[in-house]
Amino acid sequence: MPDASPAKWHLAHSSWFFEQFALASDPAYVPLDADWTYLFNSYYDTVGARHARPHRGLLSRPTLAQVLAHRAAVDARMDRLLCAALPPRVAQVVQLGLHHEQQHQELLLTDIKHAYWSQPLRPAWREDLPHPPRAEPQPLRWCEGDQGIVEVGAAPWPAGEAFAFDNESPRHRVLLSPHALADRLVTNAEYRAFVERGGYREPGHWLSAGWASVQAQGWRAPLYWDDDLAREFTLGGWRDIDPHAPVCHLSYFEADAFARWAGARLPTEFEWEHAAAGVPVAGNFADAGWMHPMGAMSRATGPRQLFGDAWEWTSSAYAPYPGFRAMPGALGEYNGKFMCGQQVLRGGSCASAAGHLRASYRNFFHAADRWQFSGLRLAKDRP
Amino acid sequence: MPDASPAKWHLAHSSWFFEQFALASDPAYVPLDADWTYLFNSYYDTVGARHARPHRGLLSRPTLAQVLAHRAAVDARMDRLLCAALPPRVAQVVQLGLHHEQQHQELLLTDIKHAYWSQPLRPAWREDLPHPPRAEPQPLRWCEGDQGIVEVGAAPWPAGEAFAFDNESPRHRVLLSPHALADRLVTNAEYRAFVERGGYREPGHWLSAGWASVQAQGWRAPLYWDDDLAREFTLGGWRDIDPHAPVCHLSYFEADAFARWAGARLPTEFEWEHAAAGVPVAGNFADAGWMHPMGAMSRATGPRQLFGDAWEWTSSAYAPYPGFRAMPGALGEYNGKFMCGQQVLRGGSCASAAGHLRASYRNFFHAADRWQFSGLRLAKDRP
Amino acid sequence: MPDASPAKWHLAHSSWFFEQFALASDPAYVPLDADWTYLFNSYYDTVGARHARPHRGLLSRPTLAQVLAHRAAVDARMDRLLCAALPPRVAQVVQLGLHHEQQHQELLLTDIKHAYWSQPLRPAWREDLPHPPRAEPQPLRWCEGDQGIVEVGAAPWPAGEAFAFDNESPRHRVLLSPHALADRLVTNAEYRAFVERGGYREPGHWLSAGWASVQAQGWRAPLYWDDDLAREFTLGGWRDIDPHAPVCHLSYFEADAFARWAGARLPTEFEWEHAAAGVPVAGNFADAGWMHPMGAMSRATGPRQLFGDAWEWTSSAYAPYPGFRAMPGALGEYNGKFMCGQQVLRGGSCASAAGHLRASYRNFFHAADRWQFSGLRLAKDRP
Amino acid sequence: MPDASPAKWHLAHSSWFFEQFALASDPAYVPLDADWTYLFNSYYDTVGARHARPHRGLLSRPTLAQVLAHRAAVDARMDRLLCAALPPRVAQVVQLGLHHEQQHQELLLTDIKHAYWSQPLRPAWREDLPHPPRAEPQPLRWCEGDQGIVEVGAAPWPAGEAFAFDNESPRHRVLLSPHALADRLVTNAEYRAFVERGGYREPGHWLSAGWASVQAQGWRAPLYWDDDLAREFTLGGWRDIDPHAPVCHLSYFEADAFARWAGARLPTEFEWEHAAAGVPVAGNFADAGWMHPMGAMSRATGPRQLFGDAWEWTSSAYAPYPGFRAMPGALGEYNGKFMCGQQVLRGGSCASAAGHLRASYRNFFHAADRWQFSGLRLAKDRP
Repeated sequence: MPDASPAKWHLAHSSWFFEQFALASDPAYVPLDADWTYLFNSYYDTVGARHARPHRGLLSRPTLAQVLAHRAAVDARMDRLLCAALPPRVAQVVQLGLHHEQQHQELLLTDIKHAYWSQPLRPAWREDLPHPPRAEPQPLRWCEGDQGIVEVGAAPWPAGEAFAFDNESPRHRVLLSPHALADRLVTNAEYRAFVERGGYREPGHWLSAGWASVQAQGWRAPLYWDDDLAREFTLGGWRDIDPHAPVCHLSYFEADAFARWAGARLPTEFEWEHAAAGVPVAGNFADAGWMHPMGAMSRATGPRQLFGDAWEWTSSAYAPYPGFRAMPGALGEYNGKFMCGQQVLRGGSCASAAGHLRASYRNFFHAADRWQFSGLRLAKDRP
Repeated sequence: MPDASPAKWHLAHSSWFFEQFALASDPAYVPLDADWTYLFNSYYDTVGARHARPHRGLLSRPTLAQVLAHRAAVDARMDRLLCAALPPRVAQVVQLGLHHEQQHQELLLTDIKHAYWSQPLRPAWREDLPHPPRAEPQPLRWCEGDQGIVEVGAAPWPAGEAFAFDNESPRHRVLLSPHALADRLVTNAEYRAFVERGGYREPGHWLSAGWASVQAQGWRAPLYWDDDLAREFTLGGWRDIDPHAPVCHLSYFEADAFARWAGARLPTEFEWEHAAAGVPVAGNFADAGWMHPMGAMSRATGPRQLFGDAWEWTSSAYAPYPGFRAMPGALGEYNGKFMCGQQVLRGGSCASAAGHLRASYRNFFHAADRWQFSGLRLAKDRP
Repeated sequence: MPDASPAKWHLAHSSWFFEQFALASDPAYVPLDADWTYLFNSYYDTVGARHARPHRGLLSRPTLAQVLAHRAAVDARMDRLLCAALPPRVAQVVQLGLHHEQQHQELLLTDIKHAYWSQPLRPAWREDLPHPPRAEPQPLRWCEGDQGIVEVGAAPWPAGEAFAFDNESPRHRVLLSPHALADRLVTNAEYRAFVERGGYREPGHWLSAGWASVQAQGWRAPLYWDDDLAREFTLGGWRDIDPHAPVCHLSYFEADAFARWAGARLPTEFEWEHAAAGVPVAGNFADAGWMHPMGAMSRATGPRQLFGDAWEWTSSAYAPYPGFRAMPGALGEYNGKFMCGQQVLRGGSCASAAGHLRASYRNFFHAADRWQFSGLRLAKDRP
Repeated sequence: MPDASPAKWHLAHSSWFFEQFALASDPAYVPLDADWTYLFNSYYDTVGARHARPHRGLLSRPTLAQVLAHRAAVDARMDRLLCAALPPRVAQVVQLGLHHEQQHQELLLTDIKHAYWSQPLRPAWREDLPHPPRAEPQPLRWCEGDQGIVEVGAAPWPAGEAFAFDNESPRHRVLLSPHALADRLVTNAEYRAFVERGGYREPGHWLSAGWASVQAQGWRAPLYWDDDLAREFTLGGWRDIDPHAPVCHLSYFEADAFARWAGARLPTEFEWEHAAAGVPVAGNFADAGWMHPMGAMSRATGPRQLFGDAWEWTSSAYAPYPGFRAMPGALGEYNGKFMCGQQVLRGGSCASAAGHLRASYRNFFHAADRWQFSGLRLAKDRP
């Protein structure tokens, strides 16, 4: 799969980031191995040429052992660096590097899941992965959202103290229309009804590009669902689908089609963010160890499951905020250059690191991507 | 070129629309030829299967003579229909069909231009096409836009009297940030400076997907420019580039990269619409006969060239307005299903029909498309 | 179809050959239009760059009228040339050009057939094409071939008087094994039995590359057969299949699979040539006007239908004869450079010009090609 | 590279052959793991579906350890089988399986070489690989071959006692033209002269399909040669090219073009076989440990280096011998179904097992393949 990378690559690339941007910020720095700079650059044109992503899967050399040794060597140098008094600019890069590594921790899990799925025998990544508890069915309730002008976004970092990626700032005002949000994510049972009632056979539910993907890719259900609609492939291998857990591994096209079929729509990223602002960032993250979404457990009123379980596709195209400024230098390539042709997702998933998320956090993928833990929450206009 | 269709197809398809949606609204209607329904359906899944667009160029049969005869037969039936008292629903479809045909008149011109360009000998479509007058150079002046909440969009048609496509409604409120708009379009001379100063060689100016297009397609200048940057291919054949006429045949990626290089940005579609609201819809349209953009002639203060000359790429992704409702039935496929992955353009071009445009009119293309007469106007944030 | 060319191209290319190799052999010759040299070169690398074959179908300019006018202008110059005393070298090129044009006359017919087939409405090329007479069923009889050393091939031309292409010479000795040849071509009825008994579903009948083609192309019957196995598309449109006429439009893979299924094999090109040597070159050629194979009419003993009706695939890979010499100069590219990866066919077809064939004539196509009038005759080993 | 397989696959497939054809010939046999039958079938359609070759490189599971354990389990069962009295049919399959495994030993080496080459850092497979001794330059001498009718091929096995693959039989008579063979292989120095004198830039030297490969693949020298024409990539990493060692890693197209440029031609497979008949099968095979061709050491008169060093491309298309019979059952797919579209190579290479070759041995690859140790010997016609 051209969008996924092997685990070895993620390991090496995370260290590459620290070497390239933290250690090498010292002009006297001598790289451990110049070749690795080429191999494990992801997409930083400013830094130089790089090994093409679709070929990453063919990298049998360097070996995993070499990668781990390289990683240990970078870590040792980072240890020495961190023992000294860090210039503020370097301290910021280190902080950014930690958030960057958390992102790759999640990708590493979703890429491994896809890699195991791609093996003809479909082995489990971990046979001993515990089963998440099953939830009771819960009716969907609508929560009225605020309307009018509200503030969204984060104060720019590192000018401000709290970390945020550049794509989350500046903080600015947006206008919310009258709307309501579902209090929980769409469940497997609800999505199965869409499938069984011909959702993948009726072009009227779909965006034009979505219908083209359905036909070209032969989609008939979410990625990882078995043809019987009863089992799904997880990081623990084949398992029965929990009907009341959130559906995931949907493309934007599928989330959008489901919402249209259900007489609703996807939320905008600002409707979501305003609802999530002030809500504690707690939920089913990777640290919980389930590595799979689970049904809403809390009985709280108001939108639940905003964080964790499954990323929520929004109807917002990924675009810069008014007054957006990319980070200076090569780090300016971190987010800004992808601001075209992708959709925003919010809230994190069961594969995200627990401390990584916040209400203003913006993730983004192409509308046809579905190997992330991506699901949806319904929204609707109010009169 | 897979996005373009032959002239014959446009001719047949415009008639198909009238036959399919106006004539065939009478249940007793007997189609002229059932095969043509298949051949000249563009993208209406509801209506049935269709001939794939990339294969349209291979349609040597039916011949042009057969298409013209078919067109005449549909016209004759339409004449009879229009002599009777029309049910309102049919009258609306006829009105829609006329606007639809105007859209294909423009596509017919841009597709012909590309088809002639694709001939190895690069013949002129019309050797006798007059040369548009050349304008004096004019300094770019910035015009402050309004900020705060403004109203945009059109009242829904046919509920309201004035025609508008479904994607322009409902009329709704948006929030404008402090901004300014350039008073004219970017010129060939300005764009040439970008090219000559390495604009196509420096990835830092480009969106990631844009840079990928530059490399994959070998872009080095706007479509139709000669390598010497002095001549361009027009519907009248090769001509010297007028330095003070608007640059056109840019992709969104090129417009965006130029704006970034120039220290500015593209306008949002709402900044544009609010500036254009109330401005008379006049300019260099197809009816003027130049079939090519020309320099700003008016000495008016405020934004000029809002209508005609070249479509203006905006930074807005094409998306539904809050409360958007598609037209009922097959006509619901007209616009709504394309609301993902494309960018909005505003204002019309030298190939648009004069009566076709309005301030709320939304055109949309993919970010890499550049065979339309598409250019740009700069915008910037104000403190 | 990338292997086919539009009729306009064949017309221009045949004239190009005369202009390039006959008229332009005079160093003072001024070409009618240098651009045409580029456009209508087929594959002569020595002559210069050329328009790629897969793009020939997009050549809307020059128009047919321009091509015909160009052709008339070349013809007029050729008339003047032929009125003078020709140097032998030029006279030879003219003779070669006539044989070359005959080859394109056949390709023009097979390409037109495919082009009409590719139109979604499948129109007839000529509604008034007469139906060939139907033959009585005739049992297949085996004719013993000679064994031992025999002579094949043609004396080199122009050293010798009789015209032959360079790939037919030199005349040389080959060793024939004990074998027998069928006295007629395989019929539609016989091939239909292969189809109905699962011939296209059983990999054991097929060469490995042939089975790959069956699966990749979805072959289920000869090209142009309807799914009902009862009708076929001809230059006169859809017609009932004559069960006792020769099957045609087979790839080498299909001919080979049928022969294996039938417990036989294909003849070598030398078994065929030795059987055909001395047989009058008569049969169902294009001049007869049927433009379709017909059943064996003659009651002669010995192999019949050796010439005309359908090209006969042989088991011989296309290769140079011992001592082969290509023609000098650019004409050396005529045949020799294709001597790898193709199979030899013998005997001509219902689309060949009557005077064009001879026993030593070698045609060649790729094993997967089936848009020619290509069928087969069975052969078998004798103890 | 779609033609190559990972080492793990070769290991598993060689054992699969023994399990499938020897162990499973007992109807009561219970396979070790049915999934492996699917995974490690190469191309036996009769045996069932299989994992597609281009996807073999993505098989991260089963792991190497699992493959080795599986292999040990098959070996243990084979040990038990071999201790009993074997039915003749099973004994033959075992013998065939050993020859089959030798073939995969060679492919394993050539595939590994290509896999290391495909790593961006181009590591050596074995840093400690010894350098073969360098030979003195030796002038090329021509050896007259016999002409007239000679016998080639092997008696059918297992009817006869001596092992031979089915494609080598039956023994039969062929007619040799007057010819001469070079007494040694073409050397790196000779081939370098071809490169330096523009061999890859002049279409006149090439077959048409060869020239298309040169352009599409960007060939400018043999595979594994550095741009400086002084170093080549070997199983021991980058090394200086020995000018007097045989050139290798040529496609058929390159071998053919060189021969044409040199005013010679390639031998037919029968010219080669007749010259090799009776010559001891000795030379630079894998068992010597060099894993790379070396210059001719022997001072013998007559053709040298017939066995080992580099496979010799012949001008013969791979085709069945008169009266060829494939082996019965699934093993009939071993060779026969590839008899179209490939060229025969003779003599073995520095990566072949020493006991594997014989004069009648026929190897075959596609004309564009060049990852085998494939070179050439010149031949020419005699008057």
